[in-house]
Amino acid sequence: MTVQTDAYPTRQKTSARDYMVRVDPVVYPSLLEAGEGPLDDHDLRCFEEKGYLHLSGLLSPDYLATLNQEAKRMRDHADRNDDRVVVEPTGDQVRSIFAIHQQSDIMADLMRSETLAPIARQLLGGDVYLHQTRLNFKPGFEGKEFYWHSDFETWHSEDGMPRMRALSCVVALDENMVHNGPLMIVPGSHKLFIPCPGETPENHFKKSLRKQEIGVPSQEALSMLVEKWGIDSMVGPPGTVVFFDCNAMHGSNGNITPHPRNNLFFVYNHVDNRLVAPYCGRSPRPEFIAHRK
Amino acid sequence: MTVQTDAYPTRQKTSARDYMVRVDPVVYPSLLEAGEGPLDDHDLRCFEEKGYLHLSGLLSPDYLATLNQEAKRMRDHADRNDDRVVVEPTGDQVRSIFAIHQQSDIMADLMRSETLAPIARQLLGGDVYLHQTRLNFKPGFEGKEFYWHSDFETWHSEDGMPRMRALSCVVALDENMVHNGPLMIVPGSHKLFIPCPGETPENHFKKSLRKQEIGVPSQEALSMLVEKWGIDSMVGPPGTVVFFDCNAMHGSNGNITPHPRNNLFFVYNHVDNRLVAPYCGRSPRPEFIAHRK
Repeated sequence: MTVQTDAYPTRQKTSARDYMVRVDPVVYPSLLEAGEGPLDDHDLRCFEEKGYLHLSGLLSPDYLATLNQEAKRMRDHADRNDDRVVVEPTGDQVRSIFAIHQQSDIMADLMRSETLAPIARQLLGGDVYLHQTRLNFKPGFEGKEFYWHSDFETWHSEDGMPRMRALSCVVALDENMVHNGPLMIVPGSHKLFIPCPGETPENHFKKSLRKQEIGVPSQEALSMLVEKWGIDSMVGPPGTVVFFDCNAMHGSNGNITPHPRNNLFFVYNHVDNRLVAPYCGRSPRPEFIAHRK
Repeated sequence: MTVQTDAYPTRQKTSARDYMVRVDPVVYPSLLEAGEGPLDDHDLRCFEEKGYLHLSGLLSPDYLATLNQEAKRMRDHADRNDDRVVVEPTGDQVRSIFAIHQQSDIMADLMRSETLAPIARQLLGGDVYLHQTRLNFKPGFEGKEFYWHSDFETWHSEDGMPRMRALSCVVALDENMVHNGPLMIVPGSHKLFIPCPGETPENHFKKSLRKQEIGVPSQEALSMLVEKWGIDSMVGPPGTVVFFDCNAMHGSNGNITPHPRNNLFFVYNHVDNRLVAPYCGRSPRPEFIAHRK
């Protein structure tokens, strides 16, 4: 019997002030020939230091219009009885649609395109696959907040992602402004792992995708991170692309403005970092949230 | 029997797209001798055009520290059974304390000081009195949004304020940042009056101070205002003072950051604009929300 060691213990008895230093690299460029990827040294150092990279001008206005049209089509045709469709905690508005690359060739093409995937391959040092893909809709007037979290904390404990060798790519379909609830990242927070208190309930995802309550860092830990590193808001015109590390602490405020804030969101994981049994001891979450093959 | 005419009908059957042009002046400088007030022509024109004035450097750091200490003392000693104390819609945290000038000499001195009151007298063209005073606490991590509203719409219908000849003064006790739910104003919106649909229930204030649902403009009207004029965020260091017109459309998003956003808020009304019977036909709200003498 193989004993599965846990590099990042969480969801156990933990003090509000506990944290550990990340043991995995952030950028793996050493595996690639110098100059082979699309990012230059400055970009690589920036990602390593801040845990994110904010890029613009990668997608043409025409292509962006196609993506926008496709996103709206998917939302308008979303079947609320489909598990892949998540509605807002209050009301019936669509909040997320998961596994969009399996439902749309246009979305799949974007994620596998030579525009975005090579950036992920360069940062993660080799071949990658799609761990999770989704469309996030933050409607105007009543879009709710996404509370602070590290994606890796959940992917590790609930999906069995062994190590920090994954990243998210967000494509802004709308303008992200300071006042329509933009993605906020604590720059540098990816260097520390914050264990979260509380045992994971069975089928936790059914609730957590609407409003997360387990896998949430303590206020003491968040205050410590923000005091150390501050908060960066990911604002920019439609088509802005943000890559961010799987362990970056992030969240977003609600949105009472009339401006919706819809984003495409997909996660590249390195092929050597494929999922094992969840570290929280529960059954794995469904395939549409965490692809296992 | 005197017939009370209603210059700004609201809370009736109204279409989502209804609005009327303001019939009252925004700035009344003609009643003062030229150069008599603290504001110059540029400030006056700015207030007239945008409906607000954003000022800094009016309060010394020492004085600000005193105000902050007093605000914390009032919050920590707030009696949750006192009607003047309003708690968050979820939880037990103090959201607002009303009539603070009657509970604290420090607060009363600020509002009557020669720093702030002369600005109100200049803009409103003569003697003023305090219509409402309060402390607003937006705690870190879980501060909730204040949805869009015109104060005048409520003061007119529920308190019987006849005309638009009042303004609010907000003193920031904490830094107001783009990401901790700062006050947002639609600059120019004070020039239009947006009637709100729905009949006012008796004792509406008991619910509306926690979460307002009647007296709320339609999404169509808000979209029209924001499309026309955009949104300005009132960010600035502690001690920032914002004066804004009673009819300016404003609101604020929630706050998941660790940074609290506590503000002092008080309303100057011109003495010729004293309250009459509420235009919605209900009993007047209590004295601590709308001073009638």
